[in-house]
Amino acid sequence: MARKIRHIPKVVTKLYRKDFYHQPGTLPGTIFIDENAEPPTIFLIDYNQTNFIRKQIATPEECAPYLDTESVSWVDVQGLGNQDILQRLGRVFDLHPLVLEDVVNVPERPKIEDYEDQLLFIARMVVPKDKTCGFYSEQVSFILSKNYLLTVQEEPEHDCFEGVRVRIDRNKGIIRKQRTDYLAYALLDAIIDGFFPVLELYGERIEELEEEVMVNPTRQTLQNIYQVRRELLQLRRAIWPQRDAINSLIRDGSELIGEEVRIYLRDCYDHAVQVMDMVETYRELASGLMDVYLSSVSNKMNEIMKVLTVVSSIFIPLTFVAGIYGMNFNTEKSPYNMPELNWYWGYPICLAIMAAIAFALLFFFWQRGWLKNSSTIKPD
Amino acid sequence: MARKIRHIPKVVTKLYRKDFYHQPGTLPGTIFIDENAEPPTIFLIDYNQTNFIRKQIATPEECAPYLDTESVSWVDVQGLGNQDILQRLGRVFDLHPLVLEDVVNVPERPKIEDYEDQLLFIARMVVPKDKTCGFYSEQVSFILSKNYLLTVQEEPEHDCFEGVRVRIDRNKGIIRKQRTDYLAYALLDAIIDGFFPVLELYGERIEELEEEVMVNPTRQTLQNIYQVRRELLQLRRAIWPQRDAINSLIRDGSELIGEEVRIYLRDCYDHAVQVMDMVETYRELASGLMDVYLSSVSNKMNEIMKVLTVVSSIFIPLTFVAGIYGMNFNTEKSPYNMPELNWYWGYPICLAIMAAIAFALLFFFWQRGWLKNSSTIKPD
Amino acid sequence: MARKIRHIPKVVTKLYRKDFYHQPGTLPGTIFIDENAEPPTIFLIDYNQTNFIRKQIATPEECAPYLDTESVSWVDVQGLGNQDILQRLGRVFDLHPLVLEDVVNVPERPKIEDYEDQLLFIARMVVPKDKTCGFYSEQVSFILSKNYLLTVQEEPEHDCFEGVRVRIDRNKGIIRKQRTDYLAYALLDAIIDGFFPVLELYGERIEELEEEVMVNPTRQTLQNIYQVRRELLQLRRAIWPQRDAINSLIRDGSELIGEEVRIYLRDCYDHAVQVMDMVETYRELASGLMDVYLSSVSNKMNEIMKVLTVVSSIFIPLTFVAGIYGMNFNTEKSPYNMPELNWYWGYPICLAIMAAIAFALLFFFWQRGWLKNSSTIKPD
Amino acid sequence: MARKIRHIPKVVTKLYRKDFYHQPGTLPGTIFIDENAEPPTIFLIDYNQTNFIRKQIATPEECAPYLDTESVSWVDVQGLGNQDILQRLGRVFDLHPLVLEDVVNVPERPKIEDYEDQLLFIARMVVPKDKTCGFYSEQVSFILSKNYLLTVQEEPEHDCFEGVRVRIDRNKGIIRKQRTDYLAYALLDAIIDGFFPVLELYGERIEELEEEVMVNPTRQTLQNIYQVRRELLQLRRAIWPQRDAINSLIRDGSELIGEEVRIYLRDCYDHAVQVMDMVETYRELASGLMDVYLSSVSNKMNEIMKVLTVVSSIFIPLTFVAGIYGMNFNTEKSPYNMPELNWYWGYPICLAIMAAIAFALLFFFWQRGWLKNSSTIKPD
Amino acid sequence: MARKIRHIPKVVTKLYRKDFYHQPGTLPGTIFIDENAEPPTIFLIDYNQTNFIRKQIATPEECAPYLDTESVSWVDVQGLGNQDILQRLGRVFDLHPLVLEDVVNVPERPKIEDYEDQLLFIARMVVPKDKTCGFYSEQVSFILSKNYLLTVQEEPEHDCFEGVRVRIDRNKGIIRKQRTDYLAYALLDAIIDGFFPVLELYGERIEELEEEVMVNPTRQTLQNIYQVRRELLQLRRAIWPQRDAINSLIRDGSELIGEEVRIYLRDCYDHAVQVMDMVETYRELASGLMDVYLSSVSNKMNEIMKVLTVVSSIFIPLTFVAGIYGMNFNTEKSPYNMPELNWYWGYPICLAIMAAIAFALLFFFWQRGWLKNSSTIKPD
Repeated sequence: MARKIRHIPKVVTKLYRKDFYHQPGTLPGTIFIDENAEPPTIFLIDYNQTNFIRKQIATPEECAPYLDTESVSWVDVQGLGNQDILQRLGRVFDLHPLVLEDVVNVPERPKIEDYEDQLLFIARMVVPKDKTCGFYSEQVSFILSKNYLLTVQEEPEHDCFEGVRVRIDRNKGIIRKQRTDYLAYALLDAIIDGFFPVLELYGERIEELEEEVMVNPTRQTLQNIYQVRRELLQLRRAIWPQRDAINSLIRDGSELIGEEVRIYLRDCYDHAVQVMDMVETYRELASGLMDVYLSSVSNKMNEIMKVLTVVSSIFIPLTFVAGIYGMNFNTEKSPYNMPELNWYWGYPICLAIMAAIAFALLFFFWQRGWLKNSSTIKPD
Repeated sequence: MARKIRHIPKVVTKLYRKDFYHQPGTLPGTIFIDENAEPPTIFLIDYNQTNFIRKQIATPEECAPYLDTESVSWVDVQGLGNQDILQRLGRVFDLHPLVLEDVVNVPERPKIEDYEDQLLFIARMVVPKDKTCGFYSEQVSFILSKNYLLTVQEEPEHDCFEGVRVRIDRNKGIIRKQRTDYLAYALLDAIIDGFFPVLELYGERIEELEEEVMVNPTRQTLQNIYQVRRELLQLRRAIWPQRDAINSLIRDGSELIGEEVRIYLRDCYDHAVQVMDMVETYRELASGLMDVYLSSVSNKMNEIMKVLTVVSSIFIPLTFVAGIYGMNFNTEKSPYNMPELNWYWGYPICLAIMAAIAFALLFFFWQRGWLKNSSTIKPD
Repeated sequence: MARKIRHIPKVVTKLYRKDFYHQPGTLPGTIFIDENAEPPTIFLIDYNQTNFIRKQIATPEECAPYLDTESVSWVDVQGLGNQDILQRLGRVFDLHPLVLEDVVNVPERPKIEDYEDQLLFIARMVVPKDKTCGFYSEQVSFILSKNYLLTVQEEPEHDCFEGVRVRIDRNKGIIRKQRTDYLAYALLDAIIDGFFPVLELYGERIEELEEEVMVNPTRQTLQNIYQVRRELLQLRRAIWPQRDAINSLIRDGSELIGEEVRIYLRDCYDHAVQVMDMVETYRELASGLMDVYLSSVSNKMNEIMKVLTVVSSIFIPLTFVAGIYGMNFNTEKSPYNMPELNWYWGYPICLAIMAAIAFALLFFFWQRGWLKNSSTIKPD
Repeated sequence: MARKIRHIPKVVTKLYRKDFYHQPGTLPGTIFIDENAEPPTIFLIDYNQTNFIRKQIATPEECAPYLDTESVSWVDVQGLGNQDILQRLGRVFDLHPLVLEDVVNVPERPKIEDYEDQLLFIARMVVPKDKTCGFYSEQVSFILSKNYLLTVQEEPEHDCFEGVRVRIDRNKGIIRKQRTDYLAYALLDAIIDGFFPVLELYGERIEELEEEVMVNPTRQTLQNIYQVRRELLQLRRAIWPQRDAINSLIRDGSELIGEEVRIYLRDCYDHAVQVMDMVETYRELASGLMDVYLSSVSNKMNEIMKVLTVVSSIFIPLTFVAGIYGMNFNTEKSPYNMPELNWYWGYPICLAIMAAIAFALLFFFWQRGWLKNSSTIKPD
Repeated sequence: MARKIRHIPKVVTKLYRKDFYHQPGTLPGTIFIDENAEPPTIFLIDYNQTNFIRKQIATPEECAPYLDTESVSWVDVQGLGNQDILQRLGRVFDLHPLVLEDVVNVPERPKIEDYEDQLLFIARMVVPKDKTCGFYSEQVSFILSKNYLLTVQEEPEHDCFEGVRVRIDRNKGIIRKQRTDYLAYALLDAIIDGFFPVLELYGERIEELEEEVMVNPTRQTLQNIYQVRRELLQLRRAIWPQRDAINSLIRDGSELIGEEVRIYLRDCYDHAVQVMDMVETYRELASGLMDVYLSSVSNKMNEIMKVLTVVSSIFIPLTFVAGIYGMNFNTEKSPYNMPELNWYWGYPICLAIMAAIAFALLFFFWQRGWLKNSSTIKPD
């Protein structure tokens, strides 16, 4: 039993321990490569209103020619598993050592930072896992400059940017007419909107738990509620700083963000606020469920105790009466020794008394409402 | 039992899952038509101090001639079930793509946004369902311009604007002398005041639950308390951003809001604050009820346990005494083998001892106050 | 039982349902007359340093001559039961329709509003009911102008202004030397100080409940704690906005408030803060009491269970032993069939074994501390 | 039992009821003399770098000659029991009526107020009572002027100013070189630092309660936790406004506070923040203890129930078996009537079956871990 | 049992009682030497881009020659056990008496203070103890000036500065090219990053507790949860003011902090925010665990009660039936006296009835789901 459960925390461990960890006492700007991380693959998309290039490139240096052209260059790095490539990337894009540290030493808290002609935006992307079990969470770093946008993703598997790539490719909407700031907005918007399907799953799980907790609360229910609370806490830590970062992007943003894109970012900010709103609502519901669980368990105990009490309180006195007439006092030694045993109607009277006691107690319990089952729930 | 309850969450589902959902990765400004949405019907009211026109129109384009006149034009669209009409509406009123998205892709969080010569106000209207079961909630979007007001309602059934229509029609109050800003205020005020009847119902439900939880707490009570808490959470999410939006309408509002109307909006803001106040109060009461419920259940268990303990503790020792004299030790083999059985007063003495034990225990329980029923509540 | 309790909520009903209710969809400025409201009676006090007039007047129009004189005129209207008089009052004092609505359509949330040469202050006055049962709550509206002060009270019965009237009459303190702003301060101060006796009652009730919940918690205690929490919530809603309103009176107040009176208002503000402070403290105590209640009930159950367990665990094994020797195996058929029954010392040995079992169990329970009564409370 | 506890609230009563009470409807500036208050005694300390006078004086008027000299005059009034003297004090020091009211009508909330050339600072001083029972709390009012400092203490018994008096007397530190502002700082610092010994006692009590609640939670424990929470609430209400007052003394302080003294006040402010910090920490611990208490009680109940269940579940079935063979069916009427009674191995087989049942049940309970005592706590 | 636990609080005591304690009524600037404190040892590191000196020095005066040179001098004092040396240190570095007090009279709350040409930064350093038992906490004071940095550590044992010393020694990174402000940053960063390993331990402990509380909650679990909550409270009090201090270092910092170092401090601030974030998350989890614990205990009690109820409810009625036929009514006196005893099929029928009753009850309990063990948890 205990052995089975031991597997669960392992899923959780990663969420905790890796969140926001920094090796103490190291040189600022030092980067750490997780040995399990996949090697980076680099994709380049370069476009303007008329042209469009999309290709995978082998080395960071290949980007260099595209960066200073007037066309918008989007370099998307996926995977953090090679120190050499990452450091060369830092040189090609002329990144401050602290920027490179933030980008590589994941997980970092979502934030925005302004470096002269670059803007660093650390975002957190979530992707729903499957119907039952949480979400994948991944850091995406944006380095926004006038002519290029560098995005670095933690791992290549999950990604919610495909819609944007298609829009660039097929020239849908205004994206090809806009600059890097709009591209950054479009990706950020995809990340924020990516929280909604995850939240939808939690909405469904909470509904299931509501039913479970009312109808048949078990230990499993308790564990599930706790699990949901913990994962919502996780989500809240992901969206809260992101919302603040978008807000300061709108208000204090550098010249890199155009006036028109600010309107779009306002929309994106609204969505982030809505995500926050839902996360908080779900957290309150989940926390309310814990109370309901405890009450439900107490309620069930009441039911159990009622059965025990009714049965015991009726039969224990009856058994006592039967016990009396099972005593072996010698009726022959004295007329006072259990004369009832020799009465003509002794046994029927005895049974009648027992029945009377039983009915009296039943009436007493019925009057208190202990005989009806109070645990049924009427459909609303 | 379980099957019956399965219907309940379905009512709730809609409230949750649809709240603030955005399709990830789509083009900004994309609008989604819910297949169950009813097709839009468009009503036009055009008035000034002397004239009044009210008619249903078939196509958005029919509004066009009214929009630039000096008279106040109120175009009221009800229902979001036709993409073509909605997009034509966007063109007629020259709406920013993001505005149209906010208006059509309901539900959106209440907010205010300023677009040059238009003001977008997203409001949430609630209508009480019936005595037992919550409220209908619907988004109403206002697009306010100098000469016209466009309102878009989610569905045509529920509406709390009839009073305003009548005031325009019959020229009651100052509405015909005022401009679009006053009209927007009047409608907004009707929406905010529409929260009061809903809250009144919750006040009544909480009173009923208070009585229930004190007198006879069942599982149903628990579920009802939880349900009320959840719906109040819903209400709070509707009114909170609305209040903030009205506040920024008063303070940072564009030139579209006249000085005089600001005074009226201040009144409307006061009402919104009062709604907030009541929602918070009800939430605190409902949350307090949960505590009371748990205590009440524990209390009831105490009562049950007392009965069990009193009955068991009295009769189990007596049964033991009876059991002793039911033993079959052979009195003939030894004078020490149950000589009591052959005593002359054996049986009466035995009964007397039993009675003494019973009375001693009863006295013990009476002294502890376990014999009186502590569950009665004196009328206050 | 249930029928008796049904009376309680009725007392409460009014507090809830009427608090801050606005009829949706009505003309702003519309006033509603509660059919149970008492007709207004109007009192006029007009004074300066040398003269003093105090009289009851029949119609609002009679005030008119006093309003423009240099002397201070205090018109005090008590009762809201006549629409005609109230509207004539509005005309005499030249009230904005929204002001009249706020004044008449009680209850309104305490607030301050600045209308050119008038200042509207909505206050809430509380008067202790009696030792056991809450407080009366009534709205008092102040309309302050340069030469007059109009106060409108919800009902004529309760009033905490008599002290001020006496001070004007007998020329005590500096009130006759001051203007309307000082008069308004004096009345407001009386209202705020009127919260203290109410709070004193709650202090006493909480003390009683503390004792009750420790010594003998019953369902009644639970209900009382909940009732106190609910009423303190009520008080908080009354004092909180009042404090804010006084604060903005001091800071942003119009020219109608003199510099010297501001110092007095600061004192009044301090008192409001102290009331808040006490309300919050009492709320925390009452909420802590709920926890104590639940723990106390659990504690009592522990006591009950201990008795049940000790009694059952001792006598059930003994009864089993007695049951064994009450079996009817035929001792004549076999030497192995209950030979004990025929032993010479059979019965005494049996009794000795039983005593040994009982003492062993008693020792076990004594060792665990279950025999001593842990529910007594030492005096502190 | 109940009678003993009745004494406890009396200790508490004073803390509550007198805190922040204002007689409604009285003239502002009216002072109330508590009949139990001790008559004021007045001490004068007058010093500069070279001279030092310390004497008790009989009437307030005797101070007058010292007030206008260049030397620093500290007038310390202890006790509030004589209206005449207090009003003469007000005249000698030229106090605003509201200042005198704040000083005399204790308790007042800690605050700072600026009156032209005087600064009023209301502080609250706490002195630990003894090891078991809370603290004395007393108001100290400072009236700071250029050349004198008037302090008014509520009662003469407790005082934490002796250290400062000694420093002046013996010319320790820089106090004799400084003006009244430094003196006020020194006294205020003594008051703030006076909170630390009180908090130390609470730290110890919480530790004791932690042990008690884990090892042997009784009703007394519950009461003690509640008591600590209540007293910490008291402390918080004393220190919170004090901290704010010191802060505004530093920031908005009048010219009466020199630049150098502001640095010292910053230190004093730090200490006040630390007191707050500890009070909040202790409050969280005490509130956590309540949860632990409830869990501990439930835990104990589990232990009790386990014993009951194990004993009952083993012996009740055995007793049933014994009961069967205690039945008196006539074995002679039929071969099917309890033939076991006449078997040769009847009794031994019966005992063996009983033993088998008992062991099976014991195994069942052992498997579930109900036989080991889970209530022991390993030393950490 | 109780004696064993008595050792635990002793570990805790120090954390509480010494935190933020100030001797009331003492001269400001007085320093207290804890008799257990170790005597101070002084280390000097002096470096510029080319030179590097590292030595232990005996007296504070030996530092003097280094302080005014252009090279960066880092004087690191470890241990607070000698009043004379500390006061000489104060003279050598020209420390304000309040600075010396803050540095020596540990513990002080983390803060920053600006003294003309010195900057005082009080930090709190934590070092993980071992896998099971909390952390060491130590105050580190920074006195930053243009050419030197003085750091004072509470005790010499634990230290997280070795990495920085190595970087200076081996000339790694840019530290040798920078001034004292960068050195202060590097040390501060080491302190902040030192929180992460401590938090990692708590993450692991919470995971263990989660498993324990679900699978087998004991009293020990409860104590451990409480212990974790208390220690996290401790951590929070350490990191919260530290974060604020770093923030004001960045924003309002004096000229002593260069522009470039501010960027690094921003990074350090981010880490402090992340530590806060994790502490808060862990606190929420630990507080949620308390709820889970209580529910788990209730759940276990339900299981226990079910067993008791099922066993008792089945066997008590059966025993009653057996008791009836154990009665000794004289069958010869009357045909109505227990004729069943003499029936041919009496005994088998009796057994059959008993079996029927038992099966009926089992069916009843099975239907309610009381026979299956609801306490197993499926692996997720």
